[in-house]
Amino acid sequence: MPNKRIGHGFAHPALLAQALRHRSAGQPHNERLEFLGDAIVNLLAAEALYAAWPKADEGALTRARAELVRESALAGIARRLDLGAHLSLGPGEMKSGGHRRDSILADAVEAIVGAVYLDAGLEAARRVAMPWFQPLIDALPSPNKVGKDAKTRLQEWLQARAKQLPMYALLEERGEEHARHFLVACRLSDPALETPGEGGSRRAAEQAAAASMLARLEND
Amino acid sequence: MPNKRIGHGFAHPALLAQALRHRSAGQPHNERLEFLGDAIVNLLAAEALYAAWPKADEGALTRARAELVRESALAGIARRLDLGAHLSLGPGEMKSGGHRRDSILADAVEAIVGAVYLDAGLEAARRVAMPWFQPLIDALPSPNKVGKDAKTRLQEWLQARAKQLPMYALLEERGEEHARHFLVACRLSDPALETPGEGGSRRAAEQAAAASMLARLEND
Repeated sequence: MPNKRIGHGFAHPALLAQALRHRSAGQPHNERLEFLGDAIVNLLAAEALYAAWPKADEGALTRARAELVRESALAGIARRLDLGAHLSLGPGEMKSGGHRRDSILADAVEAIVGAVYLDAGLEAARRVAMPWFQPLIDALPSPNKVGKDAKTRLQEWLQARAKQLPMYALLEERGEEHARHFLVACRLSDPALETPGEGGSRRAAEQAAAASMLARLEND
Repeated sequence: MPNKRIGHGFAHPALLAQALRHRSAGQPHNERLEFLGDAIVNLLAAEALYAAWPKADEGALTRARAELVRESALAGIARRLDLGAHLSLGPGEMKSGGHRRDSILADAVEAIVGAVYLDAGLEAARRVAMPWFQPLIDALPSPNKVGKDAKTRLQEWLQARAKQLPMYALLEERGEEHARHFLVACRLSDPALETPGEGGSRRAAEQAAAASMLARLEND
């Protein structure tokens, strides 16, 4: 992994090598660095949100941070860095596509941040990681919406306008036990609207239907 | 609250006042500082454990950190600082003894660490908080035991010696619905031993009995 891509010249390159080494490749692997890096990433996300959202309450800040540091967000960062190509994996993980797996990619991102912190301190870790997180922070919804699921946001939208709450109706359920597919409708009485939603669980389908309804209401 | 007791001279004393102000006393209260301080405390605990336990795996580090930053541990720190006497609370919380409540005390400790961090940076926060946490770190059990409950540790102790697992027997259950009291026994066949345990739930009583059994075995 080139130092340049990470944006930090390591005084101790062994730290970077360790950060990229999954436990399946044997010691010294990246789990301890990941433990440390997780705490740094949490702090960087917390202070960035604290500064960016001076009026947000603790609940909004906590939900926003969870969005920033969740596994899929970190794995997205890893993919933009093309981290997978530079991971050391054991033969089993290699064969089963471990370098594409979210959990392994996310852990490596945290481990790299931990390695930079040990190598050069908090300021260096901030300089490396903030360019990765800033686009995610910029893309967050507003503090009163962040981290709330679509059904919650739809309910709050309707309550703020003293309107009746939505109904969710199951339209279709098909597929084998292990691969169920659900189709539901989200229905409002005022305005009279119906939006569909699909998903692998009834809950997921309802969320999709609520998201679609919200998009419809907010665009009107 | 005297700066001296905290061990930091605040360039911005308003930050300290805010850290000591519970939300029941109105704005500006300490919830946002607590959000930030929680992340600093987590990082300080993580890096201290990382350094103190160079061989511990991620699981042990994670369990140890949870011990250090749990509400009752932070509330204990607050009590040693006599923080309760310096909190600003609303009249309701004042009357109901809020300045003695673990959750309020723990939040104030985190908020103070957040305030020091904003006032003077990570190094200052480390200088303030590590003297609070070091005794807790020194008192942790060894990495392979930390954060495991007594029943788990007893089971591991017996399995390591290829002995039969314990039985737990309910001896007595009394008290009203809202104030149940349980008495159980932990029994071993080899060596033939029995230890009692009491608690407000069957689970708590079993843990107490297992802890007592462990103490007995380890002292033999």
